[in-house]
Amino acid sequence: MSRQVDKQLQEYKEKQKNKGCLLVRCPDRPGIVASISRFLFQYNANIITSNQYSTNPEGGDFFIRIEFASPSLHENRNEIKKSFEAIAENFSMDWKMTFPSEVKRTAIFVSKELHCIRELLFEWQSGDLMTEIVVVISNHQEAKELVEGFGIPFLHLPASKENRREVETQQLKWLEEYQVDLIVLARYMQILTPVFVEAHPKKIINIHHSFLPAFVGARPYDRAYQRGVKLIGATGHYVTNDLDEGPIIEQDINRVDHTDNIEDMKKIGRSIERSVLARSVKWHIEDRIIVDGNKTIVF
Amino acid sequence: MSRQVDKQLQEYKEKQKNKGCLLVRCPDRPGIVASISRFLFQYNANIITSNQYSTNPEGGDFFIRIEFASPSLHENRNEIKKSFEAIAENFSMDWKMTFPSEVKRTAIFVSKELHCIRELLFEWQSGDLMTEIVVVISNHQEAKELVEGFGIPFLHLPASKENRREVETQQLKWLEEYQVDLIVLARYMQILTPVFVEAHPKKIINIHHSFLPAFVGARPYDRAYQRGVKLIGATGHYVTNDLDEGPIIEQDINRVDHTDNIEDMKKIGRSIERSVLARSVKWHIEDRIIVDGNKTIVF
Amino acid sequence: MSRQVDKQLQEYKEKQKNKGCLLVRCPDRPGIVASISRFLFQYNANIITSNQYSTNPEGGDFFIRIEFASPSLHENRNEIKKSFEAIAENFSMDWKMTFPSEVKRTAIFVSKELHCIRELLFEWQSGDLMTEIVVVISNHQEAKELVEGFGIPFLHLPASKENRREVETQQLKWLEEYQVDLIVLARYMQILTPVFVEAHPKKIINIHHSFLPAFVGARPYDRAYQRGVKLIGATGHYVTNDLDEGPIIEQDINRVDHTDNIEDMKKIGRSIERSVLARSVKWHIEDRIIVDGNKTIVF
Amino acid sequence: MSRQVDKQLQEYKEKQKNKGCLLVRCPDRPGIVASISRFLFQYNANIITSNQYSTNPEGGDFFIRIEFASPSLHENRNEIKKSFEAIAENFSMDWKMTFPSEVKRTAIFVSKELHCIRELLFEWQSGDLMTEIVVVISNHQEAKELVEGFGIPFLHLPASKENRREVETQQLKWLEEYQVDLIVLARYMQILTPVFVEAHPKKIINIHHSFLPAFVGARPYDRAYQRGVKLIGATGHYVTNDLDEGPIIEQDINRVDHTDNIEDMKKIGRSIERSVLARSVKWHIEDRIIVDGNKTIVF
Repeated sequence: MSRQVDKQLQEYKEKQKNKGCLLVRCPDRPGIVASISRFLFQYNANIITSNQYSTNPEGGDFFIRIEFASPSLHENRNEIKKSFEAIAENFSMDWKMTFPSEVKRTAIFVSKELHCIRELLFEWQSGDLMTEIVVVISNHQEAKELVEGFGIPFLHLPASKENRREVETQQLKWLEEYQVDLIVLARYMQILTPVFVEAHPKKIINIHHSFLPAFVGARPYDRAYQRGVKLIGATGHYVTNDLDEGPIIEQDINRVDHTDNIEDMKKIGRSIERSVLARSVKWHIEDRIIVDGNKTIVF
Repeated sequence: MSRQVDKQLQEYKEKQKNKGCLLVRCPDRPGIVASISRFLFQYNANIITSNQYSTNPEGGDFFIRIEFASPSLHENRNEIKKSFEAIAENFSMDWKMTFPSEVKRTAIFVSKELHCIRELLFEWQSGDLMTEIVVVISNHQEAKELVEGFGIPFLHLPASKENRREVETQQLKWLEEYQVDLIVLARYMQILTPVFVEAHPKKIINIHHSFLPAFVGARPYDRAYQRGVKLIGATGHYVTNDLDEGPIIEQDINRVDHTDNIEDMKKIGRSIERSVLARSVKWHIEDRIIVDGNKTIVF
Repeated sequence: MSRQVDKQLQEYKEKQKNKGCLLVRCPDRPGIVASISRFLFQYNANIITSNQYSTNPEGGDFFIRIEFASPSLHENRNEIKKSFEAIAENFSMDWKMTFPSEVKRTAIFVSKELHCIRELLFEWQSGDLMTEIVVVISNHQEAKELVEGFGIPFLHLPASKENRREVETQQLKWLEEYQVDLIVLARYMQILTPVFVEAHPKKIINIHHSFLPAFVGARPYDRAYQRGVKLIGATGHYVTNDLDEGPIIEQDINRVDHTDNIEDMKKIGRSIERSVLARSVKWHIEDRIIVDGNKTIVF
Repeated sequence: MSRQVDKQLQEYKEKQKNKGCLLVRCPDRPGIVASISRFLFQYNANIITSNQYSTNPEGGDFFIRIEFASPSLHENRNEIKKSFEAIAENFSMDWKMTFPSEVKRTAIFVSKELHCIRELLFEWQSGDLMTEIVVVISNHQEAKELVEGFGIPFLHLPASKENRREVETQQLKWLEEYQVDLIVLARYMQILTPVFVEAHPKKIINIHHSFLPAFVGARPYDRAYQRGVKLIGATGHYVTNDLDEGPIIEQDINRVDHTDNIEDMKKIGRSIERSVLARSVKWHIEDRIIVDGNKTIVF
C-alpha cells in the first residue's frame, strides 16, 4: 500500500512544483494587496486563489492567503521568499511562504481507539491528505497491525501519569529524528505537559469528543448523556497548555435522542470525530489556517 | 386576523373531536402494552400512532405515548379516563390522558426582541401551532403593536431586579385569570423566582441562545465569539430553578466562521432561536414530551 | 412600521456612504489583481473584503468581488467608475461597480401562499434585507392586508393563462413606474413569458419548492411523496425562459420520513422555502452573485 | 482481523439469544396491537421497542415492528413463530419474525472504487454491522488485497455488457453456495439484469451517487457540476428492474459551491456515499425496513 501512496505523493509534488502559498497577517492599511500583487506579478506569478479578512478596516488586523503559480517557481523559490522580506518589513507583516511540493511530515499519536487514525490513513491512501505520515507513536499496541500494514513505523511506549516525563523525552527525541512538522493526536488519551506543547507550538492538533466549550475534559459522552442534550459533537483544535481551550479549527455535531444510551452516543460520535479531525488536519496541511490569539482563521 | 385563527381552531377541534392521547410512565415489566391495547380495544378505539421507550427492559422505566380515535370518544371521554385508573394503579403508572380538542391556553412572555414571538404568532396564524394564545405579557412596549394586531391582549408591566416580587405576583394573577396552561418565554430577559417557577412546574418553556450546556447565562453570543467557536446554537428547555439547567427539549446549530462578528452571530442565531422555540412549543402542545428527571423524552 | 424601516435605511445609507463594490469577470492572466488593487490604492481606497475565483488559472475565466472604502468616495464615485474603464478595457472585463448606499428597489410578486413574502417583510423590517420594497404585485387578495400593514403599495390584477399578455403588459408598466431593480417571485404561481423575462434579465429571483433538478415543474411535494424520498428541499434561482432551469443561487433540504404525508411535507417545505428565498435575495441585494452561464458564483 | 470479528459476532449472538423481531403489515383495524401484545405476553415476552405506522387509520394499511425478549425464546423460537400464524391469518398479515442471533449472510459486490466497501468493512470490524460478510465479488482486482486482509473470500470475474449473462449465472451460483441473504452493491458499476434482480427481491441494496430522483443514471457528479447545484448527495435504495427507481432507504447531502470542480464533488460525494450506504445496510440487517410498494418504512 505504501508504494501506492508514494506514487501519489510523487505525482502531487511534480504537479505542485511551481506553486506557492503566502500567508500574511499585519496591521490593516491601504496598499497591502496592491504591494503583494505587484510583487507576485513581477515574478510572473498568477494568483490561483486569494482570501483575505480584516478584523476592522480602520485600525484592525489584516489577513491574507494567496495561492500562486509561476513558470519557474521551483528554481527561484528561495530567491522569491528572500525578496519578499522588504515588503513584509514595510507593512510589519507576520508571514510565511510555503510550497506545497515540500509536503509536511506528520506523526500520529494514538491510544486504543482506532477510528480516527483509520480515517486519516484511508484519506491519506485515497490521496486526500497530501502529507508524509512518517511515524505513529502509541502507548498501546492496538494500532500496530493497522499502521504497519501501511508500511509506517509504529513506535510503542507505555505512558501513564507516573512516567510522563521520561515518555515525553523519548517522544520528543523521536519527533526530532523523524523531522516531524505536524503532530496529530488521534484519540491519544494522555495529557501533554507544557514542555512538550511548547516544543511544537501551533503544530499539535487534537480531536476532542464534544462541541467545545461544552464538556471540557474527561468522559464527555457520559456527561452529554447525563445532561440530556439533543446534539453531540466533536472539535478539532490546536493544543495549548490549557486543556481543551486551544484555538478551534473545526466542529460538527449530530442529532441524538432519548433512545441513545452512552454507547450509542459514542458510536454516533465516532463518525463525527473522524470527519472533524480529517478536515482539521487537511486544512492545516494545506496551509489554510492562521492562528489569531485563541481563534483560527480558516481560509 | 384573529377571526381566521379562530376559524382554524374551531375546525381543528371538530376534526380532533374523537381523538385522545395517552402518556404513561411506569416500571417496565411484561404485559403493559397488552393491557393498554386491550383497554383501548374495549372502547372501540383504534391506535393511530404509538411510541414507546424503555430505559432498560429489565428493571428500568417504560414510557409510552398513544394517539387513539374512537367513534364516540367525545361523549365518553371522562368515563374512559376514569376507567383507565384501574390499569394505571395495577402498573404503578404516572400517566395523563389528554384530548387534542381541548386545546391548551398559552401565554407568551417577551421583552424587546421580537423575532421569537413573531415566529410563534405566524406559525399560529398559519395553523401550525394549535393552541389559544390568550395573552402576551411584557416588561417593554416593543411587542405591543404586533400582538394587538393579532387581537391578543397585551399586558405591560416594567420589570427589574428591584420589583421582581410585585411583578411576579401580578403576573401570576394574570396567568390565573387567563387560565393559562403553558408559558412561553420568547426571549423574556428576566430571571424568574422559585415562587413563580414552582407555580407552573414543567409548564414554562424558555429559549436559550446557545447550545447548552455551553454558554449558560448572559451574553452567550459574545462569549461564543470570544471562544472562536465554529458553530452557534440555541436550546429550547423547560424552566427549573437552576438557570439554564432545565430539561432540554430541542437544540439546533448553524455554522459561523471567522468573518462573523458578534452582530452577525446574533443575526444567524435569531433564525435558529425562532425555529428551535417553535418546535419546542409545538411538541409540548401536541403532548409529545415526557419529562424524565432532567431529561425529556420527545415522542 | 414603515417609518422604522425608513429610519434603518437612512442610517444604513449614511453608514455605507463611502463604500463601493466591484464585480469583475475576465479572461484569466497575471496582473489583474495587481492592476485593480493599484487602481484602488490610487483612490486611497482600503479593501474591506475581496473574493476571487478562477475556473482554470491557465486560460480560464477570472472572477473577483471587492468591497472597498475610501474617505471621499461618495463625492468621487462617478469619477472613480469612469476612470476604471481603462483597466476594464485592458483586461476585457465584464464588470460593474455599485455603491451600497444606492439601495436596490425591489418588487415582490405573490399569489395566495404568504410564508415567503412574510419572511421577506420581516427580514426587511429587522434590518436584515437592505432594499426598498417599493411595490407588491399579486393575482390574488390574500397578501393585501399584510403588505399594506407595512405601508407598501399592493397592486392587484387577476392573472391566468388566458389574459397573460395583458397582465404582463400592465405589470411591466408598473415595474417601470416604480423603477424596480429586482423582482422576487415569492411563491407567484404564474409562468412568465419570454417577453417579461427578457425585459429583466438576471433580475428575477424565484423560489422553487424542490431541490432542483429533481421535481421540475408543478406539484413537487406530491411527486416527492410518491417517490418516497427521505429529503425534501427548495431552490432559489434566477428565472430564465427554461422553466426551473435558471442559474441556481441557493438550495437547502430537510429530512422527511414515511410518517410525513403531503401536507406535512408542505409544512416542512415552507420553512425551507422561506429561508432559501431570503438568503437568495439577500445575496443578490448585496451584489454577491455573478451569473456565469447557467451557474452562479456566490461570493 | 477476522478472528476479532468472529469473537464479536459470537458475543453478539449470545447476547441476542433470547431476542426476536416481528415485522407486520396488514389492513388497519382496531385490535391489532391488542392481539399481538397479548400473544407476546402469553410467551412471557417483554416488548423492548415497538414502532408502528398507519397510512390512514380508516381503511389504510398498518405497519408495526416489535423487538421483544423472552427468557427461553431461543429454545421456543420455532414454536412461537408457528403459533403466530393464527393471528397473522386473522388479520390478513404480511409478516415475518426474525431472530437477531441468526445473523444475516452478506455478499458485497464492488468494482474499482473502494471507499464504500472500506467503510462497510471497518464498520463491520468495529462491531457496528452485525452480519457475516461471507464473500466479495468483483469485476476488477482493486479490492482483492483489502478484502483478503480481512480473511474474506474474494471472487473475481471480469464483467461487461457482452458477457453479462454468463457472469450473472456464475454470480448467482456463488450466492447460492455462500447462502447469501443480502447483496450490497458498494459502487458496483454494472447494471444487473431482471433475472438477477428477481432472484433476490428486496435483498439487493445499491448506493447511487446522487440525491434521487435527480441525476438518475450515469455520471451524476458531472451532471451536477454542469447544472450548478449547491448540494450534492447520495441515495441508498433497493434494486428493482427500473434503474435507480427502487425504494429509497436513505439519502443525505453535502454543500458544494462554485469553487468545487467535478473532482472535488466526487471527493465530497465519497464521504456521503459511504455513510449513506453504511446506514442503509445497517437498517436492513437490523430488520428495520418494510418495503411498501416503491417506498420504504424505516422504523
